[in-house]
Amino acid sequence: MSSQLEQLRERLAEVADINQAAEIAGWDQLTMMPPRGGPQRAEVLGTLEQISHDKFVSPEVGRLLEGARSELEAAQQTSPDDDDWAMVTHTQREWDKARRVPTALAGELARASSLGQEIWVQARRENDYSAFAPVLEQHLELKRRYVDCFEGFDCAYDALLDDYEPGMKTAEVTRLFAELRDELVPLIDEVTQHELDDSIVHGHFPEDAQRRLVREVIELQGWNAEGWRFDDAAHPFATSFGASDVRITDRWEEEYFPSSLFGGMHETGHGLYEAGVAPELMRTPLGRGVSLGVHESQSRLWENMVGRGRPFAEVLAPKVSDIFGGQLAGVSAERLFRAVNRVAPSLIRVEADEATYGLHIIIRFELEQALIDGQLSVSDAPEAWNAKYQEYLGIDVPSDAQGIMQDVHWSGGLIGYFSTYALGNLIGGQLWKQVHSEIADLDAQLAAGELGGLREWLRVNVHQHGAKYLTDDLLHRVVGTGVEVGPFVQYLKTKLSAVYDIALV
Amino acid sequence: MSSQLEQLRERLAEVADINQAAEIAGWDQLTMMPPRGGPQRAEVLGTLEQISHDKFVSPEVGRLLEGARSELEAAQQTSPDDDDWAMVTHTQREWDKARRVPTALAGELARASSLGQEIWVQARRENDYSAFAPVLEQHLELKRRYVDCFEGFDCAYDALLDDYEPGMKTAEVTRLFAELRDELVPLIDEVTQHELDDSIVHGHFPEDAQRRLVREVIELQGWNAEGWRFDDAAHPFATSFGASDVRITDRWEEEYFPSSLFGGMHETGHGLYEAGVAPELMRTPLGRGVSLGVHESQSRLWENMVGRGRPFAEVLAPKVSDIFGGQLAGVSAERLFRAVNRVAPSLIRVEADEATYGLHIIIRFELEQALIDGQLSVSDAPEAWNAKYQEYLGIDVPSDAQGIMQDVHWSGGLIGYFSTYALGNLIGGQLWKQVHSEIADLDAQLAAGELGGLREWLRVNVHQHGAKYLTDDLLHRVVGTGVEVGPFVQYLKTKLSAVYDIALV
Repeated sequence: MSSQLEQLRERLAEVADINQAAEIAGWDQLTMMPPRGGPQRAEVLGTLEQISHDKFVSPEVGRLLEGARSELEAAQQTSPDDDDWAMVTHTQREWDKARRVPTALAGELARASSLGQEIWVQARRENDYSAFAPVLEQHLELKRRYVDCFEGFDCAYDALLDDYEPGMKTAEVTRLFAELRDELVPLIDEVTQHELDDSIVHGHFPEDAQRRLVREVIELQGWNAEGWRFDDAAHPFATSFGASDVRITDRWEEEYFPSSLFGGMHETGHGLYEAGVAPELMRTPLGRGVSLGVHESQSRLWENMVGRGRPFAEVLAPKVSDIFGGQLAGVSAERLFRAVNRVAPSLIRVEADEATYGLHIIIRFELEQALIDGQLSVSDAPEAWNAKYQEYLGIDVPSDAQGIMQDVHWSGGLIGYFSTYALGNLIGGQLWKQVHSEIADLDAQLAAGELGGLREWLRVNVHQHGAKYLTDDLLHRVVGTGVEVGPFVQYLKTKLSAVYDIALV
Repeated sequence: MSSQLEQLRERLAEVADINQAAEIAGWDQLTMMPPRGGPQRAEVLGTLEQISHDKFVSPEVGRLLEGARSELEAAQQTSPDDDDWAMVTHTQREWDKARRVPTALAGELARASSLGQEIWVQARRENDYSAFAPVLEQHLELKRRYVDCFEGFDCAYDALLDDYEPGMKTAEVTRLFAELRDELVPLIDEVTQHELDDSIVHGHFPEDAQRRLVREVIELQGWNAEGWRFDDAAHPFATSFGASDVRITDRWEEEYFPSSLFGGMHETGHGLYEAGVAPELMRTPLGRGVSLGVHESQSRLWENMVGRGRPFAEVLAPKVSDIFGGQLAGVSAERLFRAVNRVAPSLIRVEADEATYGLHIIIRFELEQALIDGQLSVSDAPEAWNAKYQEYLGIDVPSDAQGIMQDVHWSGGLIGYFSTYALGNLIGGQLWKQVHSEIADLDAQLAAGELGGLREWLRVNVHQHGAKYLTDDLLHRVVGTGVEVGPFVQYLKTKLSAVYDIALV
């Protein structure tokens, strides 16, 4: 007779396998599936979610959790550093939440997510918000029913946020974002007084050449064909089916190569996190990144702190010179560094610079709360969106396709997700500061294209733990505090001082 | 309260969804997955198979089958043409068989299948039979345990054959193959006395040009980007995730374009079958082709009877002339027709001509029976393989990679499958004769590149029924008899008479 812990592991491995099957089908939907496959795919994803949910929330898992806990307590194996104990406590937390959600609702959420994404693709292409509005309405309806499953959250949005950033509270995010906004607004005001010529990164950069560039750069990061794939997607994303099968995607804008370049580095950052999780955590609920905030800290650290940093420009400049030639022939690292760091309020979140990016997130954070609370109707949402873009970024939104429909998230019911991008910037700032204090010659390594030191530091300090420590615990282990705004803002000021040749303090 | 039939449908739809998820993951493994993803993928496929099996063989499904049967009997809805009745009887047959197989064994079979394919790829590449032998040994072991689950089959091989060709018996196949061999051997002897110059189809045909050719031709067949995909695979195959998401694959040999051309037409033939199943049968056990024999009748009919036929050469000749030029510039339809129909004993089954093809199958049919019965050991199998190639085809096998390891099937545990290729030829011959009697100007249509008439005839007579009728019943409906050798042999003699300009009777 195997122990309760072993039986629990078996049960959870089965659930992990079903979830992975759903992720494979989801990846396929976004990269490979022909258009007419959508409705049947939604059925498959709905059924898998129901089965996975059913198996996970079963009373049997509850009993095994209790039994495994007793076994570990008896063996005095209750340190948060113990893999088994962490697995049991983490799973208990997820089980307590999941078992409140009826299986039928879990399936409905998955089905609506899959169908909504297909509708969004077409609605955005045709700039037809009226086609998208029912999707958003349905997701809000479902999410309200989902929120109603829980007790003990301070507000509806807390229940949603907790799915993406376990343990984080809306009030805490509100506080952090207020502090961030108070730093960003004057910074942007100051910086945008100055001119910066970024014309060298605009022009015509053939897709094939961009593919070559991105492939060379992500291979420096650690991408390899033995255990990774690299495909096209309308809205780039990363996923993984175990640490040895990591999939990233990218898209190609021929008039602006930084989009695919830094987008590729971003997704590879996500992929490295998944690829770095300790093998012994695989097929358990700890076998992936702990939260989207920590995940985004990895992607945005690689995208911006490495990719758009001054040291790595030494690597990128000769590459873009070789690969694109023309206006970039012989471009200096300094010139390239400046051009890819121009601060300018813009329409599209994923193309935003690091300073204005946070404002795009704050807009979504505020709108999501108003939508879920019912203070804002779906029909009024585009107007509210446009008003906030005018208020926060001072720009006019010319169309819903470039406005409220620009992101894939809401089409898939991902409400509460956006905040994690800005949290990721903050966490990334904290890790960036820490790794510099621990690896003295890090900048020299980056300038030489040696990215292994950074990758290994991240693997040891963050990746290997998977979901073993909640964000706050993980950060305390690595940097000694919870999420803070200071390091990111300081990083940004230092960088923009160099970019604009001004003194920001 | 919904009827027992409705409840049964819901249960079976769920099972169909899980199976589809496994097929998506399986397609991904063969086309997209990075090499190191193999072990984890095997876990996913094993778990899905266990869950699907568990759900399907549950006593609940047995009770619902009984209840649904009573409801239909009460409503006098018991005609074999009734969709519901056919669904219940077909499912009862599958359930009776599946419930004898322990869930753990079902999962083991799926896991071994997934792992074996990965090992085969490498073993074949390195011509290392010793790496492949344990895979074959394990599959035989598992298959023997599988066979032991059943009673009432005349021999072990019957139980395996029945999975691919429900209702077919080894004794019947043996009889058909003896008759076929007695026709083929003298035919091959006669034909190979004559010379045929096929040098125009050998040379250098760039992959890109081949892709263009295949794409043009399969679009004539009915392939379209809205509901199909077309990818590369080491061993071409077709699959579908519902009628609106059909996936075919092909491979590219630059020195011989007929391989990709007719291979692509073959897989599209499979795909058209899946795409043509009536929508109301989807997500039921009737929602796909009835057997591999009927499936192969579709693929081989399109590949050989259409693709390598004299009428369609009128379409192909100008295409290969345009696309490849060089030695094919201005090639006549007659010359091309002859070159792609040269009869010559050869090493590789998938490249064999229509006359010798049957012998490749008969070799496998005999070896599989000896292996499963234990009369032939895995270690002696390569020698036995080579001896049979010498005996039946008069050729030496230079390596195991080109010999016993040439096909993917055994690596995935598909034992009992090969016979269906030859059965498919026979059934294809019967359908080919029938469609010509019903569409008087069929050859003129094919010569004009109008393939819609044939496709529609196949859809109405074969495809739409899915698995509603067993092979024998389906054939009786369409051609008035069970499987017969005569029409295929007559077709072949007529064709080869024209190819070689000789009189064969």
